[in-house]
Amino acid sequence: MPTLTLRELADAIEARFEGDPDVALSGVAPLERAGPADLSFLANPRYEESARESAAGAVIVGESFLGNGRNLLRVSNPYLAYARAVELLLPGPVFRAGVDPTAIIDPRAEVSSESSVGPFTAIGPGARVGSGAEIGPSCVIEAGVEIGSGCRIFPRVTLHSGTRLGARCIVQSGSVLGSDGFGYATDERGRHHKVPQRGGLSIGDDVEIGANVTIDRGTAADTVIGAGTKIDNLVHIAHNVTIGQNAFIVAQVGIAGSTSIGDYAVIAGQAGIVGHVRIGDRARLGAQAGVIGDVPADAEYSGYPARSHREQMRAYALFARLPELFDRLKAVESRLKRK
Amino acid sequence: MPTLTLRELADAIEARFEGDPDVALSGVAPLERAGPADLSFLANPRYEESARESAAGAVIVGESFLGNGRNLLRVSNPYLAYARAVELLLPGPVFRAGVDPTAIIDPRAEVSSESSVGPFTAIGPGARVGSGAEIGPSCVIEAGVEIGSGCRIFPRVTLHSGTRLGARCIVQSGSVLGSDGFGYATDERGRHHKVPQRGGLSIGDDVEIGANVTIDRGTAADTVIGAGTKIDNLVHIAHNVTIGQNAFIVAQVGIAGSTSIGDYAVIAGQAGIVGHVRIGDRARLGAQAGVIGDVPADAEYSGYPARSHREQMRAYALFARLPELFDRLKAVESRLKRK
Amino acid sequence: MPTLTLRELADAIEARFEGDPDVALSGVAPLERAGPADLSFLANPRYEESARESAAGAVIVGESFLGNGRNLLRVSNPYLAYARAVELLLPGPVFRAGVDPTAIIDPRAEVSSESSVGPFTAIGPGARVGSGAEIGPSCVIEAGVEIGSGCRIFPRVTLHSGTRLGARCIVQSGSVLGSDGFGYATDERGRHHKVPQRGGLSIGDDVEIGANVTIDRGTAADTVIGAGTKIDNLVHIAHNVTIGQNAFIVAQVGIAGSTSIGDYAVIAGQAGIVGHVRIGDRARLGAQAGVIGDVPADAEYSGYPARSHREQMRAYALFARLPELFDRLKAVESRLKRK
Repeated sequence: MPTLTLRELADAIEARFEGDPDVALSGVAPLERAGPADLSFLANPRYEESARESAAGAVIVGESFLGNGRNLLRVSNPYLAYARAVELLLPGPVFRAGVDPTAIIDPRAEVSSESSVGPFTAIGPGARVGSGAEIGPSCVIEAGVEIGSGCRIFPRVTLHSGTRLGARCIVQSGSVLGSDGFGYATDERGRHHKVPQRGGLSIGDDVEIGANVTIDRGTAADTVIGAGTKIDNLVHIAHNVTIGQNAFIVAQVGIAGSTSIGDYAVIAGQAGIVGHVRIGDRARLGAQAGVIGDVPADAEYSGYPARSHREQMRAYALFARLPELFDRLKAVESRLKRK
Repeated sequence: MPTLTLRELADAIEARFEGDPDVALSGVAPLERAGPADLSFLANPRYEESARESAAGAVIVGESFLGNGRNLLRVSNPYLAYARAVELLLPGPVFRAGVDPTAIIDPRAEVSSESSVGPFTAIGPGARVGSGAEIGPSCVIEAGVEIGSGCRIFPRVTLHSGTRLGARCIVQSGSVLGSDGFGYATDERGRHHKVPQRGGLSIGDDVEIGANVTIDRGTAADTVIGAGTKIDNLVHIAHNVTIGQNAFIVAQVGIAGSTSIGDYAVIAGQAGIVGHVRIGDRARLGAQAGVIGDVPADAEYSGYPARSHREQMRAYALFARLPELFDRLKAVESRLKRK
Repeated sequence: MPTLTLRELADAIEARFEGDPDVALSGVAPLERAGPADLSFLANPRYEESARESAAGAVIVGESFLGNGRNLLRVSNPYLAYARAVELLLPGPVFRAGVDPTAIIDPRAEVSSESSVGPFTAIGPGARVGSGAEIGPSCVIEAGVEIGSGCRIFPRVTLHSGTRLGARCIVQSGSVLGSDGFGYATDERGRHHKVPQRGGLSIGDDVEIGANVTIDRGTAADTVIGAGTKIDNLVHIAHNVTIGQNAFIVAQVGIAGSTSIGDYAVIAGQAGIVGHVRIGDRARLGAQAGVIGDVPADAEYSGYPARSHREQMRAYALFARLPELFDRLKAVESRLKRK
C-alpha cells in the first residue's frame, strides 16, 4: 500500500494542512478506530468530540473545526476530500486489459483492445465495449449492447439486448439490466398474455447500479436513467420509467411503470412509487414511503399514502396518542350525558 | 423488420379496419411518440384525445372510439390485439436449436434435440428439457429438473433439483427456483438448526417469472405455482406456498411460508403476506399492503394491517385530519370546562 | 432412500418411542398429508387434533401430548428432533471432493483437496477454501476470499475480495457478498462521487444466507455477521452493519449502513431499519416495521414508525375506528351547539 505524508496528501487533494507536514499516512479508518498511520475525516459536527479524541494520524476537517494542535487537512467538503484520499492511500486493483481465454466474444462484437473481459463471459454480436471498460467473470452481454469507455461491470451481470451504458458506469454483481417488463393484456377469461417488450434501456454517464438490481427495458420506447444517478442494491425499476440526472435511489426501492423521477431526487430505502406519476426535481421521499400520486419539485414526502413529511410526522405523532384521544372523547361524552 | 399493411394486420389480429387499407406499418410506439409508420393503441378512454391527435400511422381502438377519419383497427380488447400486433411487426429473435459447445450436459439428462442451450450452462443428470425450450447462457439446471416444451430460461437462472416447469414458461435472468426455505428448529440455547428442505417446486404451464425472483422448494411436499400465473421482478415466495392459476404478483412482493393464494388474485408491488393464511380467488391486495390474516375471495384489501380497501381509504383520509381532530376535541373540552 | 424402524429412529434422535418399535419409516410429510411410511411431527399444540387423526406411520411429539395408542417419538423439542430425523430419512446428496475441469483456480489459491468446486467457477489468487467445502457451479470467488471448512456455496454466488466465511456456512444461489456499499460524497453541484469501499465482510461460523441476498463490504473497517445468524432471501445489509450471533432475519429485510443488531434478534419480513441505530439483543421487529431509532434489548417493535408492538396494535385498532371517532366528535359538537 502507498504511504503519503500529510503534505503530499494536502497537495493531492487540494487541502490546507495543519500540524506535522511529514507525518506518514498509509490507511484510512473511522475516527473511533483510527491509529497513528490512519487518515480519518469529520463530516458531521456531531462527531467533533470524536475528532478531537481520535488516535488518527490526521483528520480531514471543514473550515470551522477548532484545531487543537493535531494534524489536520482543511477543505470545504471533508467527505469529498476523504473519497479522493482513499483512492490515493488504498488504490483499487490495477486495471489490466485483456480477454480471458474462456470468454466467448462474437466476432461481430467490437471490443476495445484496451478493455478487459473475465472468464466465462459471453458477448453477443454487435455489442460494443469501450476503451478501459472492465467486464467481470460470468457476465452475459447480449447482442447489440453498448458499454461506454471506463465502465466497470462486476461479476455475474446480465445486460440484455437494447441496453446502452454511457461512460464510467458501474454495474454491480447480479444485476439484470434490460429485462422484460411486467406487461400483459388480460383476456375476457382472465388469462394474461405477454405484451412483447421491444424497447431499450438507456443509461447515461457515471451511473452506478448496485447488486441484484433489476431494470426493465421499455415496452416500445426506452427506459431511461440520467447521467450521474446512483442506484443501491435490490432496487426495481419497471419498464418505461424515466429517471433524471444525479438522482439517488436507496436499496430495495421499487418504481412502477412509466413513472418519471426528477434530477437530484432522493428516494430512501424500501420506498415504493406507483406507475404513471411524476416525482419532481430535488424531491425527497422517506424510507418506506408509499407514493400514489405526483410529488412536486423540492417537496419532502413520507409515509403511506405519502404526503408532506412535516404534516405526516405530525399525524404519526398523534396516531400514537389515539388511545388518549378516545379516552378524552369518552370523558367528554360522559360529562355531556350527565347534564 | 417486417412491414405490414393495415389490411394485412387486420386479418392477422382479427380486427376490422377503417381508413386506408394500404398504409404500411413497420413499428410500434406510444400514442404521443408514434410516427406515420407506427402502430399505436388506445386501451384507456382517458387518452382518447391523444389518440385523435397522434401522428401514428394507425391506432388499435375499441368499439366505442369515435373515428375521425384516421386509420383504425377496431377490436374488443385493444391491448390484447396490440400484444399480437407487436409480435408481427417486431418479432423476437428467431429460435435456433442447438447446444453451445461449452455447455455441460450430463449424459443422463434428456435434452430435446429441438431445444437450445447457451454457453457455460450446466445441466445435471436426469434433467429433462422439452422441445422448443431455450436455455440461456450461464444457467445451472440441477439433477432431475424438468423444463417443459417451449420454455424460455433467460441467462443466469438457477433451477434447483426438484423444480418442474410446465410448457411455455418464462424465467427471467438471475432468478433462483427451488432454493431452500427459511426453516430452522431453535434449541433451548437459542441456536437455529437447519430443517432439511426436501420438497420440490411445481410450476404450471404458461407461468412467467421476472428477474432476480426467489421461490423456495417445499419442506416435505411441494411449493406450487398454478398455470398462467405471472410474477414480477424481485418477488420472494417462501416454502410450501400454493399459488392458484392466472394470479398476478407485482414486483418485490413477499409471501411467507405455507400461505395459499387463489386463482386470479392480484397482489400489487411490495405487498407482504404472513405465513399460513389464505388469500381468496380474485382477491386484490394494494401496493405495500401488510396482510396478517385471511382475505376473502373477491375482496380488495390495502394498508397495514391490511383490511377492506374502501374502509382503509376512509381511515387514511381521517388520519391526515388527526391534527384537526385534536384541535376540535380541545375546543370541545374548553367549552365544557368554561360551563 | 433409507428405511428406519421406529426403534432405530428413537435411538438416532434420542427420543423415547411408544407403539410398534418395528414400524418402518422411509419418508416425511406434514400431518395432513402423511401416509403409513411417513414420519411427521407436532410442534404446535394447535394441531393436536391433526396429530391424532393423521395417517402418519409415526409422529414426533412433545412430552405433554396425550398418546392415543399410535406410534410416537417423544422428545422435549419435536421440531428440532424432526430436523435430525429428516437428515436420516432423506439424506442430501453425498459430498464428493473434486474440482470440475472447467473451473479456473488461480495457482496462488489454497483449495483443500477435500473440497469440491463446480463447473465454470473462478477462484482468484490467495483465496482459501477449507476441507469439506462445496462450491457450486458458476460462482465467482475473488482474490483473498476465505471459505471455512464445511461451507456450502450454492450455484451462482459472488464472493468479493475481503469476504471471509467461518466454518459450515451456507450461501444460497445468486447472493452477492462484499459488494460496494452505497457511499458517495456529494459536491456543491449535487453530483455524487463514489467513496471507495475498502473494508471487508466477516461472517462467523454456521451462518446461512438465502438466495439473491446482498451484503456490502465495510467502507474502511468490516461489515460483520455473527456466528449462527440466519438470513433469508432478498435481504439487503448495507456497509458497516454489525449483526450479532444467532440473529434471525427474514426475507426482504433492509438494514441501512452502520446499524448494529444484537444477538438473538428476530427481524420479520420486509422490515426496514435506518442507518446508525442499535437494535438490542433479543429484540423482535414485526413484518414491514419501519425502524427509525434504537430498539432496546428484549423489546418487541412493529409498525411505522416502529415502536412498542403492544402500543402499536392498540393504536392500529383505534385507527380503524377513526370514522366512528369523527362521528362521535361531531355528535358532541352538535349537542354543544344546540345548547
